[in-house]
Amino acid sequence: MTVRAILDTKGHQIIHVGPDDKLAVAVKLLSERKIGAVMVMTDQHMDGILSERDIVRVVGERGASALDEKVEAVMTRKVISCKPSDTVAAIMEKMTSGKFRHLPVMDGDKMVGLISIGDVVKWRLREFEHEQEALRDYIATA
Amino acid sequence: MTVRAILDTKGHQIIHVGPDDKLAVAVKLLSERKIGAVMVMTDQHMDGILSERDIVRVVGERGASALDEKVEAVMTRKVISCKPSDTVAAIMEKMTSGKFRHLPVMDGDKMVGLISIGDVVKWRLREFEHEQEALRDYIATA
Repeated sequence: MTVRAILDTKGHQIIHVGPDDKLAVAVKLLSERKIGAVMVMTDQHMDGILSERDIVRVVGERGASALDEKVEAVMTRKVISCKPSDTVAAIMEKMTSGKFRHLPVMDGDKMVGLISIGDVVKWRLREFEHEQEALRDYIATA
Repeated sequence: MTVRAILDTKGHQIIHVGPDDKLAVAVKLLSERKIGAVMVMTDQHMDGILSERDIVRVVGERGASALDEKVEAVMTRKVISCKPSDTVAAIMEKMTSGKFRHLPVMDGDKMVGLISIGDVVKWRLREFEHEQEALRDYIATA
């Protein structure tokens, strides 16, 4: 099972802000959409990613005034991404070892979606369950 | 595999704030400890739980002034908990269906730990892998 299968079900929508937007704008967007991260983009180019954790960290360090800062001052610039052809198992390991919860999906230079650790967990568990059923059937009928 | 097994490895530490603490205090604590949620407690009594998502939501709705509010105005009061004897599989379902990422562990009236969806995923995957290995061995040697 691949990242492509998740996106085909979940959709390819990418919620984003601009690097010059204030942090408060991004916070409002996360809050309204009930999501954990937004992409930071200039036209089609990915500048970074901004998560709930980034926001809590910077507000914890600098206080409420951090909300007036630009998104680009707070976002994570070095974004790890995955490909549509990557397996769910591979990106789950990537996420747990890197301790991040969101991975943009890149098809060459083009971003085609964003998947969360919640998506990955759901699919990986489904995959395991299918394999186990197959193994149990095999044993039962052998 | 049970919740007790996770806690025996992870430890029983419970990071908490008081209901009268300002939100800014809780944000600082989450930021410093790099954690996603804290318990809200008065002495040994659990008043609620406060997560990154709660904070981002209230700051998104009310702006930076929300950081001056008391924790009890923002926390989630109705906390779902689990028992040390619960299976990892059962609490994983609880978390995914309820869409929360943290579960306090109650032994009768006493809170004995807090586990995150990250903990659960790690253990559940390990469990599946062990079962699959056992099934594969069975097939290989049958």
